[in-house]
Amino acid sequence: MFNVLDILGTIAFVISGSLSAMHRKLDLFGIFIIAFVTSIGGGTIRDILIGNTPVSWMQNTTTMYLIGGVTIFSIIFRNKLDYLKGSIFLFDTIGLGVFTIIGVETGINAGLEPIVSVALGATTGCFGGVLRDILCNEIPVLFRKEIYATASIAGGVCFMVLYSFDLDQNITYISTAMLIIIIRLLVVKYKVSLPLFTTANNDLTN
Amino acid sequence: MFNVLDILGTIAFVISGSLSAMHRKLDLFGIFIIAFVTSIGGGTIRDILIGNTPVSWMQNTTTMYLIGGVTIFSIIFRNKLDYLKGSIFLFDTIGLGVFTIIGVETGINAGLEPIVSVALGATTGCFGGVLRDILCNEIPVLFRKEIYATASIAGGVCFMVLYSFDLDQNITYISTAMLIIIIRLLVVKYKVSLPLFTTANNDLTN
Amino acid sequence: MFNVLDILGTIAFVISGSLSAMHRKLDLFGIFIIAFVTSIGGGTIRDILIGNTPVSWMQNTTTMYLIGGVTIFSIIFRNKLDYLKGSIFLFDTIGLGVFTIIGVETGINAGLEPIVSVALGATTGCFGGVLRDILCNEIPVLFRKEIYATASIAGGVCFMVLYSFDLDQNITYISTAMLIIIIRLLVVKYKVSLPLFTTANNDLTN
Repeated sequence: MFNVLDILGTIAFVISGSLSAMHRKLDLFGIFIIAFVTSIGGGTIRDILIGNTPVSWMQNTTTMYLIGGVTIFSIIFRNKLDYLKGSIFLFDTIGLGVFTIIGVETGINAGLEPIVSVALGATTGCFGGVLRDILCNEIPVLFRKEIYATASIAGGVCFMVLYSFDLDQNITYISTAMLIIIIRLLVVKYKVSLPLFTTANNDLTN
Repeated sequence: MFNVLDILGTIAFVISGSLSAMHRKLDLFGIFIIAFVTSIGGGTIRDILIGNTPVSWMQNTTTMYLIGGVTIFSIIFRNKLDYLKGSIFLFDTIGLGVFTIIGVETGINAGLEPIVSVALGATTGCFGGVLRDILCNEIPVLFRKEIYATASIAGGVCFMVLYSFDLDQNITYISTAMLIIIIRLLVVKYKVSLPLFTTANNDLTN
Repeated sequence: MFNVLDILGTIAFVISGSLSAMHRKLDLFGIFIIAFVTSIGGGTIRDILIGNTPVSWMQNTTTMYLIGGVTIFSIIFRNKLDYLKGSIFLFDTIGLGVFTIIGVETGINAGLEPIVSVALGATTGCFGGVLRDILCNEIPVLFRKEIYATASIAGGVCFMVLYSFDLDQNITYISTAMLIIIIRLLVVKYKVSLPLFTTANNDLTN
């Protein structure tokens, strides 16, 4: 099951990454790099933080062939994929949901505390997109309006609770992923946003 | 003693991080992320460089509760904290001083050479702020005028010298932290700056 | 031989890094930081990915003295060095060639698959420049026109092929480095560029 999740999340992030690179008018090579970084970034940082080295994608060439293949697929079918309005958003959210689950479960298996496992899940889910944005010199997705990390953390907490009830694994996986996807969709549909706290002194030079 | 330093540095960086996030008008979640990254960033990179994994904040849930609590405190008392003009600068400098000490001492305990330990101290002290600036898509604090890393390196050298004399630990700690804080205050007060070296050819495209 | 390569690549990247910092009008300390990050960045990320910690530059103080010395040399002879039009480009390309070789060979010695070793070589060659650009808040060199990573990957593939024929090591090293340097020179001379793939929908907010 773990493997299926990994493949599903990688495919989703490769599609969202390569569509997003094409929107930014990067050349052929830029598309491959962004697809690669978006799909392996979160897992790589997770592996580095817990000391699981060489990191996963280095131990398993399947990942590299999968990324290469799906990127070529995305380039060929770019206009078909783009027909679905918001398709980057969709695939990005699927990737976020799946990689959050993998991250939380990795944390549990490494014997980390629940709150730390949730943080590891959020790191795994979010940092592919964060690295992509840093490489493109944009404000990371974390700080944009779509409540990215909040959805991932809510999913991680949901996973920990269901996991503690010892339910069937598939139910835990599917509920967590659905929760993350639904939160992001609702947030975008109803334009929810988190509260701001302004200070009297707003001098940015401080 | 080590633990007290760790808590002190974390509190200082959480306050400077969350004030700085509020100045940037980030939402509730953005404030938590920036506070988290600013306070654990330097130590995380230190742990990764020397191979101390899972990194410190993953082995000790106290850090996460401390960061959460102090961030909430900073949000509630944001206007009080902001009354102290330059309070971000103040807390940032305290964090820099304390984390530099922790970094240098970690290097010594890991058996690294003095010059490498000083570099590890500067990394630990500076990279929380650097990561914060990268995530916010700003020029990292390292390259701004306030002589950030230079103060940290001077403090690290001071620590190594006092350490070699085998003085009382507390004297070494306090002298190092004071030196870093005083250097930064003097630099800001007297607008000291390091020399520039211009080249005949200033073509930025090169 | 390995050691000679390491020294050569470090010198090349320190010169390109410090010239590039002076072009950006950074102060004395900024020049040292950029020279340091450009020259150790790729190797540090390589070591972290494969779990070789403490990372190389921490185990060997020679690297730090070499970086310090060559940076001072570059500052003193900045105008001489700058006379060679495109000298940043030249030294950067030498560093790219040499560090790609070191990275691929490290991957082979760590028992990684050929395709993974090539990726590790490209990471080692490119990430010094990428980190430099991220710290300076610029679009990383990877996405600029000069076909940086493509040259590094081509060199890595060439190295793997020659290596499998069990040729004399020096021939393998020199052919790989020459190939990378020639590709970059030809690309700049003839303004080659990789194909773009545009989508019907170019909404960057997606």
